[in-house]
Amino acid sequence: MASDLPTPPEPAPGPPSAASTVRRSASRARYDAAAVHAVLDAGWVAHVALAPEGEPVVIPMVYARDGERLLLHGSVASRLMRGLDAGLPVSVAVTHVDGLVLARSAFHHSVNYRSVVVRGVARRVTDPDAVAAGFTRLVDHAAPGRSDAVRGADPTETRQTLLVEVPLDDVAVKVRTGGPIDEERDLSWPVWAGVVPLSLVAGDPVAADDMAVTDVAPPEAVTLP
Amino acid sequence: MASDLPTPPEPAPGPPSAASTVRRSASRARYDAAAVHAVLDAGWVAHVALAPEGEPVVIPMVYARDGERLLLHGSVASRLMRGLDAGLPVSVAVTHVDGLVLARSAFHHSVNYRSVVVRGVARRVTDPDAVAAGFTRLVDHAAPGRSDAVRGADPTETRQTLLVEVPLDDVAVKVRTGGPIDEERDLSWPVWAGVVPLSLVAGDPVAADDMAVTDVAPPEAVTLP
Repeated sequence: MASDLPTPPEPAPGPPSAASTVRRSASRARYDAAAVHAVLDAGWVAHVALAPEGEPVVIPMVYARDGERLLLHGSVASRLMRGLDAGLPVSVAVTHVDGLVLARSAFHHSVNYRSVVVRGVARRVTDPDAVAAGFTRLVDHAAPGRSDAVRGADPTETRQTLLVEVPLDDVAVKVRTGGPIDEERDLSWPVWAGVVPLSLVAGDPVAADDMAVTDVAPPEAVTLP
Repeated sequence: MASDLPTPPEPAPGPPSAASTVRRSASRARYDAAAVHAVLDAGWVAHVALAPEGEPVVIPMVYARDGERLLLHGSVASRLMRGLDAGLPVSVAVTHVDGLVLARSAFHHSVNYRSVVVRGVARRVTDPDAVAAGFTRLVDHAAPGRSDAVRGADPTETRQTLLVEVPLDDVAVKVRTGGPIDEERDLSWPVWAGVVPLSLVAGDPVAADDMAVTDVAPPEAVTLP
């Protein structure tokens, strides 16, 4: 019943080195920018951890990737955003659960997943054009092209929003795929073994109750893992 | 473009008090054991944050709820598990993404979600019967009843596995549901607005390549959010 999810990752991407080798489950680590980007681009919610007074706090947040950085945003009044703005070290994880791995032994049960963990220090984005571009990325991350169609942030909304970036310098991506890996002695155990695949799917769009226009269609695509 | 995901939660459950009120988005907080349990019981992967040397590290982990505690487990060799065993403060989040909330304005885009954040200190489970019961919970959390059908952990596997519990004392649950909340002035903006629902679904089970028995069926049900 090993957890099979990653222990804290060491730095990446780039070729593995002694310092960047994930200490355990090394075969599940990938040091590959394309793999990192694919995992990040397929999700909507990251788990962001800070330790404002040495004690960890983890919360879910909306995010987007823009090139080699993660964008996070929130209210200027939020403690988390103030902590990010203050340059506290941050750890950000994005995880997709792809399947339940059911083994013959309790010990070898596992989960198929894709995960990226980023560590670093957030930096506030202050340049007005860069802030506007960041907001665009955040909207388009959920529904490609949508930023062109909606009302952009006005000066008041922009003032209320703190945008920060976390560079993708210290990143680890881990992936588990495939079936259970049981002990030879357990292969005849009289129980079904295999994978129950899981995937996040989009249902039919539900229009807002207060839709005042009728000749517009819902987005054709949203980002899916 | 407010993030709309929670700022760090204050203590709960129990009736909200000044100390337990989530500072922002208070209407999204629920102080309700049943709601906490429902969110925790519907997931497989928690994001666990520690701050071993004052710097946060967040990683995804398998977990299960057992009564008023969360169970986490992993290899005795993992740094994370050793940190948990050492009594470091921990923060654990479980989040389900339920939909993309597409507003007329960039600012009011959001995500529908259910989230629980637990803060506390982990305690190692040492009593052999309690360890065995914990392993049972972890297997059954994914596929109800499965622990009866699989080979239980042997003494070697048990020695290799560290099981800890985190009490559900300091817990916040937050839920966002429903459509976008736009400004009155934006209601006629010529763009579709509403929610694209998202849900995690199970696909057809895929039997292991090395299945040596044939007269067994895959589990009829797995836990779904």
